[in-house]
Amino acid sequence: MIEVETQLARVLAETRPLSSETVPLSAAHGRVIAETVTSRYALPPWTNSAMDGYAVRSADVATASTDVPVTLEVVADLPAGASADPALSPGQAARIMTGAPVPADADAIVPVEATDGGERRVSVTAPAAAGAHIRSAGEDRQPGDALVSAGARAGAEVLSALASAGYGTIAVARRPRLAVIATGSELVAPGEPLDRGQIPDSNSLLISSLAVEHGAALVDVVRVSDDVDDLDAALRRLSDRCDVIVLTGGVSMGAYDPVKELLSPGGQVRFEKVAMQPGKPQGFGRLGEPWVGTGTPGPLVFGLPGNPVSAWVSFLVFVRPCLRALQAASLVEDPRLSARAETGWRTPPGRRQYLPARIRLTDAGVLVAPAAARGSGSHLVGSLADANGYAIVDASVERVHEGDTVQVVPLVSDVGARL
Amino acid sequence: MIEVETQLARVLAETRPLSSETVPLSAAHGRVIAETVTSRYALPPWTNSAMDGYAVRSADVATASTDVPVTLEVVADLPAGASADPALSPGQAARIMTGAPVPADADAIVPVEATDGGERRVSVTAPAAAGAHIRSAGEDRQPGDALVSAGARAGAEVLSALASAGYGTIAVARRPRLAVIATGSELVAPGEPLDRGQIPDSNSLLISSLAVEHGAALVDVVRVSDDVDDLDAALRRLSDRCDVIVLTGGVSMGAYDPVKELLSPGGQVRFEKVAMQPGKPQGFGRLGEPWVGTGTPGPLVFGLPGNPVSAWVSFLVFVRPCLRALQAASLVEDPRLSARAETGWRTPPGRRQYLPARIRLTDAGVLVAPAAARGSGSHLVGSLADANGYAIVDASVERVHEGDTVQVVPLVSDVGARL
Repeated sequence: MIEVETQLARVLAETRPLSSETVPLSAAHGRVIAETVTSRYALPPWTNSAMDGYAVRSADVATASTDVPVTLEVVADLPAGASADPALSPGQAARIMTGAPVPADADAIVPVEATDGGERRVSVTAPAAAGAHIRSAGEDRQPGDALVSAGARAGAEVLSALASAGYGTIAVARRPRLAVIATGSELVAPGEPLDRGQIPDSNSLLISSLAVEHGAALVDVVRVSDDVDDLDAALRRLSDRCDVIVLTGGVSMGAYDPVKELLSPGGQVRFEKVAMQPGKPQGFGRLGEPWVGTGTPGPLVFGLPGNPVSAWVSFLVFVRPCLRALQAASLVEDPRLSARAETGWRTPPGRRQYLPARIRLTDAGVLVAPAAARGSGSHLVGSLADANGYAIVDASVERVHEGDTVQVVPLVSDVGARL
Repeated sequence: MIEVETQLARVLAETRPLSSETVPLSAAHGRVIAETVTSRYALPPWTNSAMDGYAVRSADVATASTDVPVTLEVVADLPAGASADPALSPGQAARIMTGAPVPADADAIVPVEATDGGERRVSVTAPAAAGAHIRSAGEDRQPGDALVSAGARAGAEVLSALASAGYGTIAVARRPRLAVIATGSELVAPGEPLDRGQIPDSNSLLISSLAVEHGAALVDVVRVSDDVDDLDAALRRLSDRCDVIVLTGGVSMGAYDPVKELLSPGGQVRFEKVAMQPGKPQGFGRLGEPWVGTGTPGPLVFGLPGNPVSAWVSFLVFVRPCLRALQAASLVEDPRLSARAETGWRTPPGRRQYLPARIRLTDAGVLVAPAAARGSGSHLVGSLADANGYAIVDASVERVHEGDTVQVVPLVSDVGARL
């Protein structure tokens, strides 16, 4: 058996970042920014008013009070979007709305609430210090200041900052083109009636949905029998169009494991036993001839075990970092948190456990419990519905006791969430 | 001024859940499950083998050892998907693959590793206790057992559990149809050159992207000037096609605030001062005639302030719970966590502060710092790129000191993330 880290290092060593493409900001939502972005503009671009009110010379209103107001002549009206820069002589003011550029001759804003709101003459009832209610050009960012780092995921906030900083388009990583092939003669489409021995194909949905949550563009999602010819045909059809193909099932010790039977002999895809539970049998490699043309770099291929929890863990531990690395995301592996076990559970001897878990962030710290009411079987697909992360327990641990400290990884999708 | 809770209660009181619709599981990804779902099948549906090996009568192999193996006749071969239930007499076994149904006459599985792998006769070198390596039908879920609660968001894991439990389609909440109207004569399209006084329209991207991250279907995203006729025309065009219209800008005390000018007189949309910073001016209501036909319930309308940070906070505090309630999501308001301030910052007097923040989950607990290097201005759009949540500071607090405990809300998108 090899360690998880060894297998992951093999995956990442084979993973080359995809090219980038420049798209309108609205099309960049959820994608990975491909280059470090600096601000094109000063933010804000113009020294502007933080309030609706009057732009004044602060010296003019230094003595203003409710008892002894100061009256100024209103010589201009500056709504938002106004381009004017009216000259203000002593004793003069300009009515100004929030966001409008402050005239060069003014050095303070008197809020409308401290005036009589006059349109030709205004009575000011409070002083305004130099700089009051003025936002200086560039106080948030100067042109050339760092704004967004390469590898950041573009959520709503990043897009909004990019727009403000002068960008209409942005370079983002190309989405990994990904196909899912679920293998198994026992599989039928979800919702179809079952004969004895058949089960619904849940892995197609699981893996394709996870892939989308991590930025992939789905090329196809197919289900094939345990006949190697079916698998071979699917690979021939898909290999030229994919960056990644994820197979589920058919990778273990059985007599009818088509993935291993078809892909092991050429040596392009290696099958390993990894010291983890679930997820021990893992296939990974890069597909070549006869599935792709000579000289063409073929897609990365993952052969994940077919049990649902095994496929889920294997995706999160191996495929997810690969998808992130293909997109050159700054986050490749999720940070782990220390959590306190709310109940105890058994762990397998000699292999690191990845347990679907219910993680709670509380004021008393992070708490964790198994998602499944009954233990940790790799077939407990129902328990996945209750999982919002997984626990990681060292191979040396034989049993987790209530109150023990355990490492956990909360489950987030990359598209949107950024904790 | 009214309290945040008062305004939110008004919003939620006016928000009626949308109807549901039944869609294929693959189309339900990221949507909210509309009814509590029980398992149609037992999970697993068949008592099946957890290993590749041989189905045996445990009594037959009770004495098996490496020194004195037990030899059994192999009378059947059961790959995954096999429907056969071969009779096994004493001394007989069936070769069986992981996931294949266990014959009724067998009560244990001998893993292939504990045999010679024979195809007609098999030599067994270890005993197997009754029940060994057998997964019993229904041990994860019995038919009728609870599987997914109404209001849950359908991530990959939920979809996978639903498929396994017998569902091909599922009832989900209809997506809220939402339009964004950014108002302001100073706004130009992102990437267009700026004249003095102009700024790029970032709110269109911000609000539309946030809406998508929280399950909305975008009807349109438009930008209008501060001319009320422009706004009126946009509302007439969009009102019949939307469940929600989110306006930004034009809601405060200014002389050119078209949203307030157009929508305040009829009383359908109320404009309040809310005791929060930023986000004090808030408009909310339900649009009626003349924008929608008689007797038709019009869309909910939010009039958010136009400063970018104000619009962002207002969306998260008022629009997000509304979108979730429209989808009848079980999570309406995000849980707050206690965090320790990594640095101090100033807070406004008399209003609750919502500060864009950088939140870090660490083994030493949750830490928080302002996203902006320079204070907390509502115009600091650049700082949004660095925010992954916000801090909430009580109105009574005048200054947060390093080490103080502060409430924070991490930023997650609803579509995918479920912590």
